[in-house]
Amino acid sequence: MENLRFENKRLFILDQTILPNEEKWVEIKSKEDAYDAIKKLMVRGAPAIGVFAGYAMTLFSDKTDIHELKNYLDSSRPTAVNLSWATARMVKAAENGADLINEANAIKSEDEEMCRKISEYGLSLLKDGDGVLTHCNAGELAASKYGTGLGPLILGKEKGYEFHVFSDETRPLLQGARLTSYELEKAGIDVTLICDSMASVVMKKGLVNAVLVGCDRVAANGDTANKIGTSGLAILAKHYNIPFYVLGPYSTVDFDCQSGDGIEIEERNPDEIKQMYFKKPTALKETKCYNPAFDVTDNSLITAIITDRGIAYPPFNKSLKELLK
Amino acid sequence: MENLRFENKRLFILDQTILPNEEKWVEIKSKEDAYDAIKKLMVRGAPAIGVFAGYAMTLFSDKTDIHELKNYLDSSRPTAVNLSWATARMVKAAENGADLINEANAIKSEDEEMCRKISEYGLSLLKDGDGVLTHCNAGELAASKYGTGLGPLILGKEKGYEFHVFSDETRPLLQGARLTSYELEKAGIDVTLICDSMASVVMKKGLVNAVLVGCDRVAANGDTANKIGTSGLAILAKHYNIPFYVLGPYSTVDFDCQSGDGIEIEERNPDEIKQMYFKKPTALKETKCYNPAFDVTDNSLITAIITDRGIAYPPFNKSLKELLK
Repeated sequence: MENLRFENKRLFILDQTILPNEEKWVEIKSKEDAYDAIKKLMVRGAPAIGVFAGYAMTLFSDKTDIHELKNYLDSSRPTAVNLSWATARMVKAAENGADLINEANAIKSEDEEMCRKISEYGLSLLKDGDGVLTHCNAGELAASKYGTGLGPLILGKEKGYEFHVFSDETRPLLQGARLTSYELEKAGIDVTLICDSMASVVMKKGLVNAVLVGCDRVAANGDTANKIGTSGLAILAKHYNIPFYVLGPYSTVDFDCQSGDGIEIEERNPDEIKQMYFKKPTALKETKCYNPAFDVTDNSLITAIITDRGIAYPPFNKSLKELLK
Repeated sequence: MENLRFENKRLFILDQTILPNEEKWVEIKSKEDAYDAIKKLMVRGAPAIGVFAGYAMTLFSDKTDIHELKNYLDSSRPTAVNLSWATARMVKAAENGADLINEANAIKSEDEEMCRKISEYGLSLLKDGDGVLTHCNAGELAASKYGTGLGPLILGKEKGYEFHVFSDETRPLLQGARLTSYELEKAGIDVTLICDSMASVVMKKGLVNAVLVGCDRVAANGDTANKIGTSGLAILAKHYNIPFYVLGPYSTVDFDCQSGDGIEIEERNPDEIKQMYFKKPTALKETKCYNPAFDVTDNSLITAIITDRGIAYPPFNKSLKELLK
């Protein structure tokens, strides 16, 4: 499942805003196209945005000063740390007189390597035939290859494992339905879509041997911010005695953040809940909504945190630091 | 919040299929209208269907044999036990030469009385200012007055209590968004709509003092079948040490059913998950869905079961029977 193609100095992306109903490859012909592609979420997922920005810099830096180009692209999604990291790396390469295409290729291959390591560590905790529950989308559409949360499933498929995956639809933005069930179906992995409220039932029926989720930020003590709904899943998994695994790059661990209490949770537009995807509004205009984008899963609910540097087990305060050695 | 009006021998219902976007009262002019209203879910909720069928029988039994009329109406929703119970009662009244309108009025007022009792028992467990989380819709739209799960909130409002209610949207059919948040808003009760996956966060923030849900069937040991998502909520409530209350008529307790293992769960159309309410399908046509309509909440997760005969506490095997005395 590719989300980007760079061929003969032409850059194409799979428009993720219209999946799964259309698979449309869009050519990025100008820096304005690149800006829009990020802003409109046609390309999404921290690693995928970084790789995309790298290639965009190779194409449009002959027409625009590279510092200006960096600032312009960075402004398309100011909170995407991986975006400004990738564009800074491209600027530095240009200043050093390095080949920009080589540098963009390096960003991509390093990301693949990181995802492959996470996937291998994750796969070591699963066995053939396992039922796996996942939430949101942390797969190949969001990264350069394998992805993080879904990486062990995709790598496992390559190695002949047969998993049975339950994908939460992940309200309000439905990434689990639109993206995860789509990409696993395309990868030939057995996937069943459920509503978020159905996770308890599939766990109770014994259909889930492990829960795999990605992460947006991990505190020093292992408390993990991820897509809204993750903490509830972790509590269900604990209740049913099912291992709960968090997967992500080691760089996601923020050692300056002591616990989840230090992680601020973004609240988003109520229309995402009652209007965005629906034929008609599902609630009155005056109805209040609470729409947190993420939640924090307490470290006591996490079985292991799986990074490209290895697997950390509780107590995470100690184990996460030891992976640095 | 009325769902039915019977005035000058004319029967009107609030079309619940188009709420909350339109409040349309539809006159029921023929037995075919009555059949369609039940079948198309314009009127829904076990008590509300029973009351509706009672009035329909008063209007159309002069043109059709009353036994035929009963069979015809019963066939509109064969699994609705309360429907055939109400029509049988009307047939019996007719056979006894009783006034049919009096009998229909009696069905309605007895239902109101039952809901009022449930609401009073429920209210006795809450205090002014409480935050309450609810799931699906067990309010006045589904009954004749007060409802069951929402009854304490509506009765409390009448008595001057101020509750702060979180309403789960309740995927896949969105009864929490379309009906609960609508009827609480109309009742002047402070309500905030959330996605099902957000319950964990509002509980963690300390905003929920009690969870109130209805029930479709309660086993002799207290295991409770209710709208899908209920069991997950009960596990979250236990984790956060929040009381979890099940509310319903005492007639919902099935003493022939020893435990939740004996309750069969209906699986519904996958399109409810990936298509029904959405502008475009949210997943590929070939994507499998698992769509259970209900789940069973283990009695160990339930703080109390609140019926019109009183409040049962664990062990329910004993306490539920004692309410009969």
